Amino acid sequence: MFLEQIKAANDIKKIDCKDYEQLAEEIRQFLIQKISVTGGHLGSNLGAVELTMALHLALDLPRDKIIWDVGHQSYTHKLLTGRRDGFEHLRQYQGMSGFPKRKESSCDAFDTGHSSTSISAGLGLVKARDIKGEEHTVVSVIGDGSLTGGMAYEAMNNAAKIESNFIIVLNDNNMSISENVGGMSKYLNNIRTANSYQGLKKNVCEVLLGTKHGDNVVSGIRKAKSSIKHLIIPGMFFEDMGLTYLGPVDGHNIKAMVKVINEAKRVKGGVVVHVNTQKGKGFAPAERHPARFHGAEPFDIETGLPTKPKTKSSYTDVFSTVMCKLGQRDEQVVAITAAMPDGTGLKRFRNMYPDRFFDVGIAEEHAVTFAAGLAAGGLKPVVAVYSSFLQRAYDQVLHDVCIQNLPVVFAIDRAGLVGSDGETHQGIFDLSYLSSIPNMHICAPKNKWELSDMLKFGLNFGSPIAVRYPRGEAYDGLVGFRAPIELGKAEWIYREQDIALFAVGSMVKTAENVYAKLKEAGYKASLINGRFIKPIDEEAVIEASKEHKWIVTMEENVVSGGFGEKVLHCIYEKDLDVEFIPFAIPDAYVEHGNVELLKKEIGLDADSIVARIIELVKSRS
Amino acid sequence: MFLEQIKAANDIKKIDCKDYEQLAEEIRQFLIQKISVTGGHLGSNLGAVELTMALHLALDLPRDKIIWDVGHQSYTHKLLTGRRDGFEHLRQYQGMSGFPKRKESSCDAFDTGHSSTSISAGLGLVKARDIKGEEHTVVSVIGDGSLTGGMAYEAMNNAAKIESNFIIVLNDNNMSISENVGGMSKYLNNIRTANSYQGLKKNVCEVLLGTKHGDNVVSGIRKAKSSIKHLIIPGMFFEDMGLTYLGPVDGHNIKAMVKVINEAKRVKGGVVVHVNTQKGKGFAPAERHPARFHGAEPFDIETGLPTKPKTKSSYTDVFSTVMCKLGQRDEQVVAITAAMPDGTGLKRFRNMYPDRFFDVGIAEEHAVTFAAGLAAGGLKPVVAVYSSFLQRAYDQVLHDVCIQNLPVVFAIDRAGLVGSDGETHQGIFDLSYLSSIPNMHICAPKNKWELSDMLKFGLNFGSPIAVRYPRGEAYDGLVGFRAPIELGKAEWIYREQDIALFAVGSMVKTAENVYAKLKEAGYKASLINGRFIKPIDEEAVIEASKEHKWIVTMEENVVSGGFGEKVLHCIYEKDLDVEFIPFAIPDAYVEHGNVELLKKEIGLDADSIVARIIELVKSRS
Repeated sequence: MFLEQIKAANDIKKIDCKDYEQLAEEIRQFLIQKISVTGGHLGSNLGAVELTMALHLALDLPRDKIIWDVGHQSYTHKLLTGRRDGFEHLRQYQGMSGFPKRKESSCDAFDTGHSSTSISAGLGLVKARDIKGEEHTVVSVIGDGSLTGGMAYEAMNNAAKIESNFIIVLNDNNMSISENVGGMSKYLNNIRTANSYQGLKKNVCEVLLGTKHGDNVVSGIRKAKSSIKHLIIPGMFFEDMGLTYLGPVDGHNIKAMVKVINEAKRVKGGVVVHVNTQKGKGFAPAERHPARFHGAEPFDIETGLPTKPKTKSSYTDVFSTVMCKLGQRDEQVVAITAAMPDGTGLKRFRNMYPDRFFDVGIAEEHAVTFAAGLAAGGLKPVVAVYSSFLQRAYDQVLHDVCIQNLPVVFAIDRAGLVGSDGETHQGIFDLSYLSSIPNMHICAPKNKWELSDMLKFGLNFGSPIAVRYPRGEAYDGLVGFRAPIELGKAEWIYREQDIALFAVGSMVKTAENVYAKLKEAGYKASLINGRFIKPIDEEAVIEASKEHKWIVTMEENVVSGGFGEKVLHCIYEKDLDVEFIPFAIPDAYVEHGNVELLKKEIGLDADSIVARIIELVKSRS
Repeated sequence: MFLEQIKAANDIKKIDCKDYEQLAEEIRQFLIQKISVTGGHLGSNLGAVELTMALHLALDLPRDKIIWDVGHQSYTHKLLTGRRDGFEHLRQYQGMSGFPKRKESSCDAFDTGHSSTSISAGLGLVKARDIKGEEHTVVSVIGDGSLTGGMAYEAMNNAAKIESNFIIVLNDNNMSISENVGGMSKYLNNIRTANSYQGLKKNVCEVLLGTKHGDNVVSGIRKAKSSIKHLIIPGMFFEDMGLTYLGPVDGHNIKAMVKVINEAKRVKGGVVVHVNTQKGKGFAPAERHPARFHGAEPFDIETGLPTKPKTKSSYTDVFSTVMCKLGQRDEQVVAITAAMPDGTGLKRFRNMYPDRFFDVGIAEEHAVTFAAGLAAGGLKPVVAVYSSFLQRAYDQVLHDVCIQNLPVVFAIDRAGLVGSDGETHQGIFDLSYLSSIPNMHICAPKNKWELSDMLKFGLNFGSPIAVRYPRGEAYDGLVGFRAPIELGKAEWIYREQDIALFAVGSMVKTAENVYAKLKEAGYKASLINGRFIKPIDEEAVIEASKEHKWIVTMEENVVSGGFGEKVLHCIYEKDLDVEFIPFAIPDAYVEHGNVELLKKEIGLDADSIVARIIELVKSRS
């Protein structure tokens, strides 16, 4: 086993080059085996094995810096920097992160998670290096999918200005999580297949140089800067932006990559190294179903099928079904995703109504303003997006949708704690950042039927509205409670006395549990499904204050600007005589791990909530 | 006067084409005269006179749609759509907006204000048109400066996919507000000067076609798609992205532009019309000083000098001076702006420390993550940015700076009401959207000296910190109060009884006034400068609650998630026995107008606050 010889950064350099292939194979088998148990990002890691090995061979870590865009493709990097044991508890509570983390290793130069940040961060490290007079190599590794994100272009536009070395490795697997989209993707495809360019170059030069007129033309071309490049070199797009382009090179040929990276190190200025890789390489099921093996649950290596097939439908499934129905009923309904047709559940809508479905690439900013344009044009757009990714489009929601009060529905999936992806992906800010926006409305369903009802309500509402729901199984309890959705109206579920439990979204299920446990412990309580976070149901709060001594709020969102603070504001504004106990996510990032464990950790599980309520009730009565 | 004949959309078509130049001249003189009185965006409008005329001649408004990127260049469009009288009260309270507004005219297809949104919105209108089976032309007009914003690329990447007509007019004046930056700018410059391409084409074709080998080569080139274009057509960058490129065309030649726009209307798919214009055209001072006449205060037409030269220094001036000092003292201090070296006051720092100054273009997302990279590399970056533009980088602050707890200082200018730019530019959300982010710290100075102290504090703080200050004159009162800045510590200014006035930032000055008026009216009050919005000084709140019956908070930010809600949270959490009265901006967008008038309108001026406090104190005591 060559892999066992690698215990720290640069150990790979001790391996004989004839054994690289064998090592790559060992890494692949290691990753497949480990991820089949823990789950994790498989396809992107299998695609980047040789690329990572080449980088580690050509660079000197941690002196040199690698920034992994998105970061879920950094598993081989973790292996090659002494973190093999970490894979036992990959993405688990208090285990190794699935993303680069500076606190985990000095070889992780910059934390990533969201897309398209690596060139910006890399440029920052380059400039810091130059100003401090240091000498090392900085490499940003970015996928072609991440290139659809605008900030990557903002960064390339700036990389064109530098005069010192900066390497951008374009890891081109012709995929986002699903198929990649747009003009850039097509362009890269053309390069992939444009081997004829080299032949062309030869022919053209023969021609141009072989005639009397030729000399004039060639010197003319040289004067007209950049023009000759276009004929000879693929990658003019990058050259036009002011970057040097090298490639394309086979991303599974280690020697070729080491050579081109060493060449790139000698370039003054920004240089793009274009590497063609195959997502899922070496594991047939992942090669065949790249989207399914992007972020995989534990699976059976033989069949590629999930070890624990899910039995209950998720909120995403419910959304998926409802969207198809709504799409059938109303031809004005259109759906937008930023590179997540599978993840958001819009794939079925796409298959049924391809003309009304838009995958815009990893481009949340564009997605939202595009939706605003669709709404201004008279349609009913639904933007399906994960909570943490909508952060990218905060200004577009505020500036393009809400100022004009355009009827865009935001279907916010993965709202609340998401688990194993950790800090960068927890959807725990949306209630806060959306609440501060005028004209925005926010609701959250208690169970699967309510999600359906809220989506229908939202589509006919006529103003911006967000429906936020969590990752995972859709709650199918509280079946009997299905009062029609009304703007800003809460739903009384159990109405008794003393302690009024106001919960929103996923926390209604928890609150049901809290309610039961309080009763067991001899306390009286009421259960209210808040439904709307903006506007909150002030009437319900006023009523509750009359019949209860305590108002408890529960939400899967940070404290600041969340549901609880709105209820508190109402209590003060209306001068209500009631005690207040808020439960929310504390003001700190929440790491990766099982959601139930995380909730215990931050006191947001039923037991912790019950204990805290009883403690406060006792101390204040 | 031809201008007088234009009373509604399409009236321009009645003007004889020989009189276009005269009309353009009349429009220019009208704009110069009006803006010299009211102030407003001059340079961009003078540059776009002929372009706008050409669009109105080639299109049929309001059937056809024009989306003006940023929108401050839409004055001629307003003139040509019957809004001449509006210029009397341009950008004034209840007067005409300086930006396109759908509520102002059916000819305004989409509201704009921030940069780089027009292609996304235009694509939305295009898709809505196609789905509804309508037929009209959609044109997005975007400047080369706005092309440095990433979402413009996200949108172009998607425009490449459409099969119906969509026109993107690139209004290239080789400027952002200041000089444009980056690879793209250089590229466009090359096109401007690349007239030799046409000659090249002829030569090359002669050569290629005139030889035996030639035929092979030409057919070979045709096969290698897009390759021949590169030699012949400027704009391969756009062609590579999948867009058709037409141009460049002289942006002051109306006939040439009408011709190319009509040509563009026949293209199936996305088409870029590249138009070269001159910012400030026709007004010598604006041609010479484009940055100064970007957003102009009222000025003397003869001299170009401001009518009311400012006498007091602004917060921006103070920031400018402090940054130069700090830059001298500490070589690790670096400064970043997104296309605002003048507006943010970093110009002097740039001149003194060009190697430590970075203008990244209109690219707030990149700016913030780039700063995170600089900080990760060991430097002390200061991002100088307007409050409303930092909205663009909410995710980057949260995801790239704060998760890693990197020491980036955000110098947030134009925080609070900004006045005449209106809804899109009011900086009234930053306290909310920044507060919800873990590891973020926020403070606001009461006067010019405190801004200086806070910047110094921030640079040595070691964690993310925002210092937010308003547009306009720096307050130079409360000179005697200059207690050292301590994290999360408020400053007691006047300490008496009954009513504790907790104010932050610009509202401390107002609170001083409120304090005086309350005393006049026979009430006792204390004045506390909150200083920190995150974390707030809980101890001060607790102390105040002991000595006062009322705690009043004042902030220039929306209610939700702001300073007041934090104080309220503390009151509840600590179970303090005190009444609470918050003053903040209500949950609604605030239109353009004089800041003092706006504050009266929303009850945030001293008189309104005093009246409300007295009313509440009387009613509740």
